[in-house]
Amino acid sequence: MPGGASLLACDWGTTNLRAWTLAEDGAVLRHQEFPLGVGRLQPGEAAARFGGEVRPAMGAEGLPAILCGMIGSNLGWTVVPYDRCPTSLEDLARALHAVAPDIRIVPGVSCPGVTGASDVMRGEETQILGWVSMDPARAAGRHLICHPGTHAKWALVEDGRLVRFATAMTGELFAVLRKHSVLRTDDEPGDEAAFAEGVEAAGEGDALSTRLFSARGRIVADGKPAGTAADYLSGLLIGAEVAGTPALLGVDPGAPVQLIGDLGLCRWYRKALSLRGVSSEVCDGEEAALAGLAALHGRTA
Amino acid sequence: MPGGASLLACDWGTTNLRAWTLAEDGAVLRHQEFPLGVGRLQPGEAAARFGGEVRPAMGAEGLPAILCGMIGSNLGWTVVPYDRCPTSLEDLARALHAVAPDIRIVPGVSCPGVTGASDVMRGEETQILGWVSMDPARAAGRHLICHPGTHAKWALVEDGRLVRFATAMTGELFAVLRKHSVLRTDDEPGDEAAFAEGVEAAGEGDALSTRLFSARGRIVADGKPAGTAADYLSGLLIGAEVAGTPALLGVDPGAPVQLIGDLGLCRWYRKALSLRGVSSEVCDGEEAALAGLAALHGRTA
Repeated sequence: MPGGASLLACDWGTTNLRAWTLAEDGAVLRHQEFPLGVGRLQPGEAAARFGGEVRPAMGAEGLPAILCGMIGSNLGWTVVPYDRCPTSLEDLARALHAVAPDIRIVPGVSCPGVTGASDVMRGEETQILGWVSMDPARAAGRHLICHPGTHAKWALVEDGRLVRFATAMTGELFAVLRKHSVLRTDDEPGDEAAFAEGVEAAGEGDALSTRLFSARGRIVADGKPAGTAADYLSGLLIGAEVAGTPALLGVDPGAPVQLIGDLGLCRWYRKALSLRGVSSEVCDGEEAALAGLAALHGRTA
Repeated sequence: MPGGASLLACDWGTTNLRAWTLAEDGAVLRHQEFPLGVGRLQPGEAAARFGGEVRPAMGAEGLPAILCGMIGSNLGWTVVPYDRCPTSLEDLARALHAVAPDIRIVPGVSCPGVTGASDVMRGEETQILGWVSMDPARAAGRHLICHPGTHAKWALVEDGRLVRFATAMTGELFAVLRKHSVLRTDDEPGDEAAFAEGVEAAGEGDALSTRLFSARGRIVADGKPAGTAADYLSGLLIGAEVAGTPALLGVDPGAPVQLIGDLGLCRWYRKALSLRGVSSEVCDGEEAALAGLAALHGRTA
């Protein structure tokens, strides 16, 4: 064990497990990503893989461990009941679920969704409240947060509490349309002009299924290069999401947005917001997760 | 050849070919559907299959023939250039494309789409203007028409002319989400209450990707029966389409809608419109296609 190591913090998602071994003062002694996402695990093997692979590789045997993400779902180690909105770091710290004396899992969070059905998250709550913990100034006031991804999360934080959120299926829509629909294309995104064209075509986020067909018309009827189809589609879907979602949370569509997540994806969201005249800042989701896990541990140490 | 037969009319789409042998007075002497949609044809074989299979089966050898639909596309017999909006039965009749002395194909129609990219249809124009021809009262005034399908067409008819339209990918979105996404389900639609719940969840057609995720939340977090997922999804997608599309064509969302197409699908659209307080009427798409083909032939006989 490295000298002074005091905590093993893990963001354990569907695809990967990101682990940090931390010193008493919060310094990162070791950081590693493991291809052990819960979507790749056999039922019941999380404990054994964690004890047999993650702990030794991280030099973290015997350390207290804190885990967030889908590891708390029915695909993971055990089902940890959702905490309800509104919730804070203090609330989540009180609701940590011990699966062993030295291993605790952060609960996911649920809230009434924008259509009446419940909405849920597992892992993003730690990043969102972790972002809050990174700067004392964020503990007060109202913040609109967007966490892009397969299922993007839009969240409202008020005075340090996660009060409401909504999930947008934008990433998954992009994936299935690009792979399985008449809009299918093998090209990788990267053309900023086509992306901007898509954002403009999204209008105010209304009538998405009708606007979507333009992704085909511009190629087959207008002769635009087929290689720009993926960027246009991406712009249209992200444009519709950023135009339409804030109002569902009762927030002005012009309010600044705090982006937290994968830096590459956040960059495209930032561009779409900018094209709509909305300011945004980007925070690396890994840094936010680490901050959240450390803060939760610190509140219970 | 049956006595008095005067025309072979065909709606030749992607999946099937629907054929009618008509008498001089318009009476249907024979009607048959062939599994010869252009999506099932080998390149270049349309002429041979038509002459060798359709004509004999329909008792229509030697009759003039008129064809509409995807048979005029690059997948069909030959590419017939699109007619441009605004267009009428008279305009389309002048633009019929002869592929043989006695075989003519109705051109598809294009128009500037709702986002700027061009929009196109092949086959629906014959049904829409055929519907107009079925009642002299329809030749005047403004009509909002919806033709549901994989790619639904919303069209504006003014004083007997097709002036503008927009395509909604609703049917394809339903198919790909149901088969390939986290919302996948094998259940067949049929639960009217779940459909109505979906229509309500669609709101005014805004923020569709965000509203969509509720289809998962209501099952995994709220315990609704998994067997109702397809109906809810269908209601949400159709609800969003009928709420959002009229405004894109400059029409009041409360304006009555003329539904033309598959009767089963039209019934679900009618239900969604009714839940939004919008009145609608239904016309069988096959009858409209036949009326359109006969009217086009009549204008050039």
